[in-house]
Amino acid sequence: METTKNRPLILISNDDGFEAKGINQLIEMIAPLGDIVVCAPDGARSGFSCAFSAELPLRLTLRRREPGVEVWSCNGTPVDCVKMALGNIVDRQPDMIIGGINHGDNSSVNSHYSGTMGVVMEGCMKYIPSVAFSLCDHSADADFEPLRPYIVDITRRVLAEGLPKGACLNVNFPVTDSQTPFKGVKVCRMAFGRWVNETIKCHHPRGYDYWWMVGNYAGDETEAEDTDRWALNHGYVAITPTQMDVTHYGLLEQMKDWNL
Amino acid sequence: METTKNRPLILISNDDGFEAKGINQLIEMIAPLGDIVVCAPDGARSGFSCAFSAELPLRLTLRRREPGVEVWSCNGTPVDCVKMALGNIVDRQPDMIIGGINHGDNSSVNSHYSGTMGVVMEGCMKYIPSVAFSLCDHSADADFEPLRPYIVDITRRVLAEGLPKGACLNVNFPVTDSQTPFKGVKVCRMAFGRWVNETIKCHHPRGYDYWWMVGNYAGDETEAEDTDRWALNHGYVAITPTQMDVTHYGLLEQMKDWNL
Repeated sequence: METTKNRPLILISNDDGFEAKGINQLIEMIAPLGDIVVCAPDGARSGFSCAFSAELPLRLTLRRREPGVEVWSCNGTPVDCVKMALGNIVDRQPDMIIGGINHGDNSSVNSHYSGTMGVVMEGCMKYIPSVAFSLCDHSADADFEPLRPYIVDITRRVLAEGLPKGACLNVNFPVTDSQTPFKGVKVCRMAFGRWVNETIKCHHPRGYDYWWMVGNYAGDETEAEDTDRWALNHGYVAITPTQMDVTHYGLLEQMKDWNL
Repeated sequence: METTKNRPLILISNDDGFEAKGINQLIEMIAPLGDIVVCAPDGARSGFSCAFSAELPLRLTLRRREPGVEVWSCNGTPVDCVKMALGNIVDRQPDMIIGGINHGDNSSVNSHYSGTMGVVMEGCMKYIPSVAFSLCDHSADADFEPLRPYIVDITRRVLAEGLPKGACLNVNFPVTDSQTPFKGVKVCRMAFGRWVNETIKCHHPRGYDYWWMVGNYAGDETEAEDTDRWALNHGYVAITPTQMDVTHYGLLEQMKDWNL
């Protein structure tokens, strides 16, 4: 893509695929802020985390090209989409990478499984300011309109000020409607919680068992007011500053006494 | 699996598949320490990160059952394997989960892409003490024998003492041979580094372009002696204490002034 030198270049991807409502609403919200390049999966890739395709031949398909907006699809994972765009579509490093808008909650440990966060962690690992936007509503026709002013504000802010090297933002929105505005914004930490009852056994007509991945989220610190889960459960937009450095520095100190 | 009440129960998985040399050497090394249940992918799943299969019907196949060792394969991701084993194979929570031995380096940012670390992060998210072992040698017939005393020691230690809630270990071994022992063990942080030149374009006989994911690792702080990369480059075993909490607490403090 040939880009305009004096406008910000913003790369967008997601894990719901280039046809999802969330990413198309995001493009429309963000287009006034810069040149937009989209490279998104050719279909659903929910739960793909930071996976990349070591053994799949990857292909790119141009879906739309108009002044300031170019949309490509790729047959790989969300992370593949970012790597393919950076290596083969854009003519300079993007000023920002945005993942979303995801149809579904990426707070707490979901951050680890999320393909939307895969997009953003990939940007973070390339030291490009990166932000994920997710709405806690899985439905295909979810209403993203209440998110607009927040998404525009946060994007503007990050374009203007950047983010520290190795940092990104995981922004989650609770379900609301145009009559019930968000209560505000909380900058918060990732809540501890676990998925339980994660598989359901079924019986195939040909006589064998198989399982579907399902599950329920069980919060482990539902009263902790400094967490993303608390914010979402109480009607606030939750911004979780997130980092690529996964070192456990506390344990690192403890282990100096291990004498291995 | 019916397990012995007074022996530790250890769940093993990997991302190279149940037939890989690394996991089979690991089973043999660890078997004296407890009852072993293996649930590993039915083939290679390198680079699968924490991905799980939202849309794939999962199946389990019993491959081997003998006193103290049971081996299953699953058609899903490394994370699917752990979830399937916890939900459908073991009769109690394992005392420990081990990922590996991986054929290849999982230090620095590779931690985010690694399916072996997916296994271990999944254990960590279930608050089960979990350790990944990786050898910086991709070859199918890599020599894992020099790793044996370290793997046995670390496993014994973690079985005896556990790990803090939300913590796990990412253990990487440099390439060596029986004549050149490791220089020792370093407990270290994750080095910053980036993958570059990540895609190679090819031309299909039918006339279209496609790309393979490849790439070279470029260290961004090669002189930093407290990192996993430095340890490995200087002949040491690198143990990186790793955590599931990805909150960037420094940025969280800064953002309190953002007035969003």
